Amino acid sequence: MEKLKFERLTKRRKKLVESLKESTNDRGIVLLFGNSMSPMNYKDNEYRFRQDSTFMYFFDFYEHADLAATIDLDSGEEIIYGDELTTDDIVWTGILPTIKNEAEKIGINKTLPRRNLEKTIKEALKQGRKIHYLPPYRAEHKLELIELLNIKESEIEARKSLDLIKAVVNLRNYKSEWEVSEIEKAVNISYQMHKNAIIHAQAGMKEYEVKAIISKTAQEMGAELSFPTICTVHGETLHNHHYHNTLENGKMLLIDAGAEISTGYAGDLSSTLPISGKFTERQKLIYDIVYKSHYAAVKAMKPGVPFKECYYTSCREIFNGLKELGLTKGDADEAVHAGANALFFQCGLGHMMGMDVHDMENLGEVWVGYDGVEKSTQFGIKSLRLARPLEAGFVLTIEPGIYFIPYLIDKWKAENKFSQFINYSEVEKWKDFGGIRNEEDYLITPDGYRILGNPISKKLEDVEALRS
Amino acid sequence: MEKLKFERLTKRRKKLVESLKESTNDRGIVLLFGNSMSPMNYKDNEYRFRQDSTFMYFFDFYEHADLAATIDLDSGEEIIYGDELTTDDIVWTGILPTIKNEAEKIGINKTLPRRNLEKTIKEALKQGRKIHYLPPYRAEHKLELIELLNIKESEIEARKSLDLIKAVVNLRNYKSEWEVSEIEKAVNISYQMHKNAIIHAQAGMKEYEVKAIISKTAQEMGAELSFPTICTVHGETLHNHHYHNTLENGKMLLIDAGAEISTGYAGDLSSTLPISGKFTERQKLIYDIVYKSHYAAVKAMKPGVPFKECYYTSCREIFNGLKELGLTKGDADEAVHAGANALFFQCGLGHMMGMDVHDMENLGEVWVGYDGVEKSTQFGIKSLRLARPLEAGFVLTIEPGIYFIPYLIDKWKAENKFSQFINYSEVEKWKDFGGIRNEEDYLITPDGYRILGNPISKKLEDVEALRS
Repeated sequence: MEKLKFERLTKRRKKLVESLKESTNDRGIVLLFGNSMSPMNYKDNEYRFRQDSTFMYFFDFYEHADLAATIDLDSGEEIIYGDELTTDDIVWTGILPTIKNEAEKIGINKTLPRRNLEKTIKEALKQGRKIHYLPPYRAEHKLELIELLNIKESEIEARKSLDLIKAVVNLRNYKSEWEVSEIEKAVNISYQMHKNAIIHAQAGMKEYEVKAIISKTAQEMGAELSFPTICTVHGETLHNHHYHNTLENGKMLLIDAGAEISTGYAGDLSSTLPISGKFTERQKLIYDIVYKSHYAAVKAMKPGVPFKECYYTSCREIFNGLKELGLTKGDADEAVHAGANALFFQCGLGHMMGMDVHDMENLGEVWVGYDGVEKSTQFGIKSLRLARPLEAGFVLTIEPGIYFIPYLIDKWKAENKFSQFINYSEVEKWKDFGGIRNEEDYLITPDGYRILGNPISKKLEDVEALRS
Repeated sequence: MEKLKFERLTKRRKKLVESLKESTNDRGIVLLFGNSMSPMNYKDNEYRFRQDSTFMYFFDFYEHADLAATIDLDSGEEIIYGDELTTDDIVWTGILPTIKNEAEKIGINKTLPRRNLEKTIKEALKQGRKIHYLPPYRAEHKLELIELLNIKESEIEARKSLDLIKAVVNLRNYKSEWEVSEIEKAVNISYQMHKNAIIHAQAGMKEYEVKAIISKTAQEMGAELSFPTICTVHGETLHNHHYHNTLENGKMLLIDAGAEISTGYAGDLSSTLPISGKFTERQKLIYDIVYKSHYAAVKAMKPGVPFKECYYTSCREIFNGLKELGLTKGDADEAVHAGANALFFQCGLGHMMGMDVHDMENLGEVWVGYDGVEKSTQFGIKSLRLARPLEAGFVLTIEPGIYFIPYLIDKWKAENKFSQFINYSEVEKWKDFGGIRNEEDYLITPDGYRILGNPISKKLEDVEALRS
């Protein structure tokens, strides 16, 4: 295990350096920050520690806060900066692995106190060398960059290293066999979280009680949540982090939740279930359309196919399905390219997944999911996080959905928007329907795709069977 | 309810302004920040939102991120700064209460976009007025203060408003009847968390499985955790956030966990239980000493008595109890004032509790728990967070413990430290014992004290009974 880790991480760093040596004329120092503890309501009352994913990708240290690392692109020198426990600390924490020891395990023999980072950076700046850093998403790192580089907050973004971003994305986007096996562990825990919720949810419970079952399943399996759980009887509210509604028969419950395991890898699944145990006839009609849309998109996936095309495939299925119900009209292809389907399907089809549930979102979707091609600003497709041609090794989610958002329906209707494609008088009848989403995680293989983990069947009758 | 909230919050703000008008010659603007979302591994993957406690104390807004408020000490004008949802936002979030509406409910009629805070502050600075702010514990607020006040990060601490700190502490330290009833709700959920863990913990389980039961109980009761749970078979490791050990018969499990309810108030309890269901004879001996120490301290509490004296009472009980076992020797009073007891009891007896589990720790223990009197630097008592004379309305924890820390025992023994008080040869025999702590929450009343919530009996036989 230790030997494999050593090889895995040294290889990744070697590739990073090689790639940067090719891409950048401006050699200098790569600076990567590990995360700090995040204070909740005072400094020492902290959220659970989450290491930065890129830092983990190259150095591991899943449980070690306040680290930083530099790689000198000329000399190749790698340094980890961090403060070892003092004898006073050890009284409170017990004896823990040292930074030095952990660094040696991944092939780095130089560790220095955290404050020495300043020296390295100032020295490099004095020599006119470039500091390659990633865009910071934590304010602590912004503060540190302001001090280290002697710049204003407003300059941080402009001075980030595009070469570094591209080099990191180009490594992390392609999952190794080992990574896929780690992701599958997380996905399988995620399935168990959903299964327990599907089995135990019942009318009369509060949403937060189901959410509690989901968290408990993750934790008792030794995992954490990869993102805040969505667990709502209002599936149409896409950013829903309120959990005080009561589950009622006749309604559906939409769950979007995933696990993160201790190597940092994530799962991300969604389920929609009927609270009474049986879908109503109306619910069956929409569920069926989402189901068809889902697997039409899945079947379209293979290396070389732009994911944007899979998205359009899923949109067409939704548009045509709703057409059969009289909610839409006209040519599906025309409608979905114009964006008319976005009245019902406002978000993307899926996203890259890895150590981050939206993998590398902090590095920019335009690099991760668009390979540098500018994103559309059209409502609907602008929320598509992944569009580029698929390649073997990509891991991604598939999660089309249909959402009846009363506010949006009112707005579009008032504007008479896309009235050539939408029968508003029919749509009105579905305004209180809610929303349906199912979600699974896939690997792109040389031949096509493979679903990850041991999935729960999304078939309508199978979901009902699991509920009974 | 709404009317009571209006009165409660307007009264608090009125008192704050009155108190500052008396204490400060330097009238100006009070600036209070609400908290932002804290990013986990990228900007939009966030930890659960926790509003700043002082902000909640004066303005509520438990669920509303990115707010700020100013109070003009001359004109009395109160302003809430925050950005209302855009029509684009509402598509994703559904229709939510507006900031304007929520502000009116607490008697504030002026709300402005968040960016307007800059205008208010720059205007006041131009007029040479003081900006009263609290020491920030979140890096986002440091970044903002740097921009607003045009200062360096290193100047932030020095320019905090001591007058504001003292005024806030002087309000929040005295809990109203309503606050006590809220705290009791949180304490009772905390008791349920412990009860479920005590009942379900068993040999063969992992610590994280018990931790999962604790979190689930909080969540299914509609609460959150007030701090990261400690759940460990190594009770002697005081800062223990690792959960991968297996529960084994013959060992004890130490749990320190509490709930936070949606008004922001916290509970904080600890339990130590025998994994087999029965304490061993050795465990009984130490448990008994901790028990006696606990209630000796409790009985010493009443208005006017410095909490430091309660601490020394608990220390003497521990010292004398261990003397009977042959581990200590000499005069207890002399020993505990010298700090010899800190070999076994390294931390404090308790701390203020309210909206923060360590109430207002961000404002400085020297103000909250010491009323401005300098803290001792002596190992042991330096970790005592509360020392000042008790007053009616204080809410605090009582949590003495005995911890056999092998590293510390080796260290002191090698230094021959306090050898007049400690029989190291006897202590050696207990090095693998672990640690015991029990913890309860109390209100100081005009006559003495009252335990909060419906406690679980800490009696040895009652704990064993609950386990069976």
